[in-house]
Amino acid sequence: MSASIHRLGDRRPPSLDPMLALVAHDMNLVNREILDRMQSDIPLIPELAGHLIAGGGKRMRPMLTLASAKLLGYPGNRHHRLAAAVEFIHTATLLHDDVVDSSDLRRGRRTANIIWGNPASVLVGDFLFSRSFELMVEDGSLKVLKILSNASAVIAEGEVNQLTAVRRIDLGEERYLDIIGAKTAALFAAACRIAAVVAERSEGDEAALDAYGRNLGIAFQLVDDALDYTSDAGTMGKDAGDDFREGKMTLPIILAYARADAEGRDFWQDAVLGRRNSDEDFAEAVRRIQATRAVDDTLARARHYGQRAIDALGRFESGAAKDAMIEAVEFAVARAF
Amino acid sequence: MSASIHRLGDRRPPSLDPMLALVAHDMNLVNREILDRMQSDIPLIPELAGHLIAGGGKRMRPMLTLASAKLLGYPGNRHHRLAAAVEFIHTATLLHDDVVDSSDLRRGRRTANIIWGNPASVLVGDFLFSRSFELMVEDGSLKVLKILSNASAVIAEGEVNQLTAVRRIDLGEERYLDIIGAKTAALFAAACRIAAVVAERSEGDEAALDAYGRNLGIAFQLVDDALDYTSDAGTMGKDAGDDFREGKMTLPIILAYARADAEGRDFWQDAVLGRRNSDEDFAEAVRRIQATRAVDDTLARARHYGQRAIDALGRFESGAAKDAMIEAVEFAVARAF
Repeated sequence: MSASIHRLGDRRPPSLDPMLALVAHDMNLVNREILDRMQSDIPLIPELAGHLIAGGGKRMRPMLTLASAKLLGYPGNRHHRLAAAVEFIHTATLLHDDVVDSSDLRRGRRTANIIWGNPASVLVGDFLFSRSFELMVEDGSLKVLKILSNASAVIAEGEVNQLTAVRRIDLGEERYLDIIGAKTAALFAAACRIAAVVAERSEGDEAALDAYGRNLGIAFQLVDDALDYTSDAGTMGKDAGDDFREGKMTLPIILAYARADAEGRDFWQDAVLGRRNSDEDFAEAVRRIQATRAVDDTLARARHYGQRAIDALGRFESGAAKDAMIEAVEFAVARAF
Repeated sequence: MSASIHRLGDRRPPSLDPMLALVAHDMNLVNREILDRMQSDIPLIPELAGHLIAGGGKRMRPMLTLASAKLLGYPGNRHHRLAAAVEFIHTATLLHDDVVDSSDLRRGRRTANIIWGNPASVLVGDFLFSRSFELMVEDGSLKVLKILSNASAVIAEGEVNQLTAVRRIDLGEERYLDIIGAKTAALFAAACRIAAVVAERSEGDEAALDAYGRNLGIAFQLVDDALDYTSDAGTMGKDAGDDFREGKMTLPIILAYARADAEGRDFWQDAVLGRRNSDEDFAEAVRRIQATRAVDDTLARARHYGQRAIDALGRFESGAAKDAMIEAVEFAVARAF
């Protein structure tokens, strides 16, 4: 093992391109598996699933499985099917999320629930989720099944936790971190960890890749939540201010509230209860978030987790795979700058 | 093996009591597992899941796993956890079904989606579904995992198929049978089959129990669909006429339409398109169904599948378990008389 000291910001501008190049060949095989296994005799299933799956997603999670396998020098092909299973789990949660949030826009396109209705989105999500387990069973590793069934349960718990946290101004940073650790970071962690399982590496390697994925997932979600207060629909693929209008408690609001005076706390209390959801109210929210440095510090938190993700890779050999995985973290936390 | 000639109607009145008695001790252990494993740090999860799980369901599917294990003389306890997994899959599909159908009443109680809203029902369903796979992974049988992950995918396909069949007067009996074979019978079949897997019996025994469960499931659904035109909310636990008002294509309508004259066909066409959904329209529908013997023949179809379920048990030893499983079929098809 070589020494490994990387700090965020060593290079500019960070890009996802090295990771995309690293996994390009494998990703073609994963995409073939995805398209093949979302088929069904019921035409609505591939039609609806294909809308989201072909809809310009970055395939972050399967990409992490593939990159982790590269990092470990895994020579086989089991990870292609498992990466497809991971993407199916993710796609199922997106379909259900859009129903839960009544979203009308994702990745800049109309959501499936708007086009085909909530019932179809719920049921096709269920199908993809079941299909993901069929793929895992075909692979045959109980260890992988345990990792991904546990991640799926944790994701669902995180989603319910988030649902019960909506419009609760007193949520606090700790519970917010619990929520995003479950709803986002758990699948990032599992996607990386299963590469170590198929490569038959040590528990230590498994844990390190889990930590890389988990911390990257938290950083990724923190930046996403910051973008809701800094971006617009064009750059983000969803509507800026959506979280604000839904009363979703994310770290920018949590920090702005914690740092506000009595008048500011009243504003936030009203806002998350839905009493302030005009465009002017959103502009006012952005001003208050800037005044309290709440987005800046949300991004600082993201860099903290990003650094932890990078340091979790310390035990692995240097090389193109490791460099790409490091730069992917830098890219994730740099999106908002 | 003893000879086995049973015909429906040999005894009167058939009852589920022998099967309930047969599995009573095991079911206590399954219920303990269910209550134990639906817990979560997120209070809404056990609260919502408990509403449905404690809500007076018959536990038909886990009961079939337990009875099948008794039939085979299985001495172990693996089937308790797996029966809980089966019930979790079923509960998850009920939660999602009620969202899909916008139901407000199930088993005579308000549905979870009415009390806690659609988002919570979708997400807690996802949790129970994930948890069911965690239970299977703990058991550790890839064969059981394959059977139940496949059943889950087939159920979801059947639900989507049914969704696309709504308000389609030209559906036909064959496609209707495809739908109920997937959305209902697949899990009945799997619930029975997994008992043969844990008891390490032959493929032939597996297939026979699968056939028992599958035919019983079809019979069960046919009778349910008939009850929507013969029963009332008090005896059924849901509103009679619900299927009619939702334009759901079930066999009573399919047969009544196939047997109608031009004027009758116009009535059914209007009805399934939602142009006739008053109480008078429903009364008229019931009259037309009676005039064409559509409910009677739906029930005759149910008896056909019930007989097949009973004959599938032919290879197994006579005894209390087999008698109870036969009488359960007789009870299922007799509910509507």
